[in-house]
Amino acid sequence: MTKPKIALIVAGGKGERMNTDIPKQFIDLQGKPILMHTLEAFHRYDNFIQLVLVLPESQIGFWNNLCKKHAFTLPHHIVAGGETRFQSVKKGLEVVKTPSLVAVHDGVRPLVSNGTIARCFDAAAKFDTAIPVVDLVDSIRQITHNGNISVYRNAYKLVQTPQVFDAELLKKAYKQEFSTLFTDDASVVENLGATIHLTDGNRENIKITTEMDLRMAELLLTK
Amino acid sequence: MTKPKIALIVAGGKGERMNTDIPKQFIDLQGKPILMHTLEAFHRYDNFIQLVLVLPESQIGFWNNLCKKHAFTLPHHIVAGGETRFQSVKKGLEVVKTPSLVAVHDGVRPLVSNGTIARCFDAAAKFDTAIPVVDLVDSIRQITHNGNISVYRNAYKLVQTPQVFDAELLKKAYKQEFSTLFTDDASVVENLGATIHLTDGNRENIKITTEMDLRMAELLLTK
Repeated sequence: MTKPKIALIVAGGKGERMNTDIPKQFIDLQGKPILMHTLEAFHRYDNFIQLVLVLPESQIGFWNNLCKKHAFTLPHHIVAGGETRFQSVKKGLEVVKTPSLVAVHDGVRPLVSNGTIARCFDAAAKFDTAIPVVDLVDSIRQITHNGNISVYRNAYKLVQTPQVFDAELLKKAYKQEFSTLFTDDASVVENLGATIHLTDGNRENIKITTEMDLRMAELLLTK
Repeated sequence: MTKPKIALIVAGGKGERMNTDIPKQFIDLQGKPILMHTLEAFHRYDNFIQLVLVLPESQIGFWNNLCKKHAFTLPHHIVAGGETRFQSVKKGLEVVKTPSLVAVHDGVRPLVSNGTIARCFDAAAKFDTAIPVVDLVDSIRQITHNGNISVYRNAYKLVQTPQVFDAELLKKAYKQEFSTLFTDDASVVENLGATIHLTDGNRENIKITTEMDLRMAELLLTK
């Protein structure tokens, strides 16, 4: 039996980093808000995927108006988020039914490819966990308690989203108490002792957090 | 006494990653080859800096022709590089006189800011070593012998160039036998037991290795 697929899109940005009053997920990217591109990417992958959008409560009215303005009719369930990303995912998971596969995805990653989404869902169907990664281009250094050291770059991967999990596993993981070591969903699930399966992301799948990222996204969309 | 400053620009690219026959350092960026932008960045920082350019021997003629074509008259010493980046830096160092401070810089990082160059030279004047770093935006995972684990992102930094060192220290470091752990100049110097001083890079200081990077650099230059 194939488990139903759910995309849990988390958009908690308040816009501080973009020097703008408009939260970054609502910023216009080639004629429509970033977040609409993101929701469409998952719908394009699978017409039957359920879209759950987690937004700060204060932004829901604004978003509904944007949907009207842009005649955006893709059905999606809106959930009011929490104070932190961890709390927001947790609240989003409350509306997720099991059994299912849940893709947790950053609202500001509109350039996720169909291939990346497919690879993550396919791998998660087999392994219960799957996250997209890409190679590091630059060298990295590790900051230690008494300085810093060079580390072997090939031993590290940059992690993107969607991070896809069996819903039951993910819900269980989000019942844990928050830890500062939880930097993404995989780290929350891993803390239960689960193994995280890696698959290939796509380099264009950038997280739009700065003006530079936005310009880059515009470029990539015109290609 | 202030030590003389040298910029050792290493441009060993053969162009395989760009789907082009022209090595990436020669690709046109707003009217002139990337490499000319890079050399100019160091000259702009300090008119008296000595520019040493390490190029594959087979490309030197081509470069000289480009310089004529673009009426590029910035004085620079050209050195034929080796098979690997390590060998190329080593050969470049043969023409470096001591005492001096040497900035080793990727030829395909034309967007290094004046601030980054200044911070690196200033810190290296005090500490003998200085490299520019920026925060990681994405989560990273470490690949281990039996899987992969989440690591604390804030404990890592992305490393850029220029990496600036006291010339004597750097020459000594490059007398070591090559190790696969040498992923940048800092790792070579560190292997001597030296401490690497970190300073702030600039996020725009990207290494142009793909078509996407090139388009990004064009954008950043038009700002």
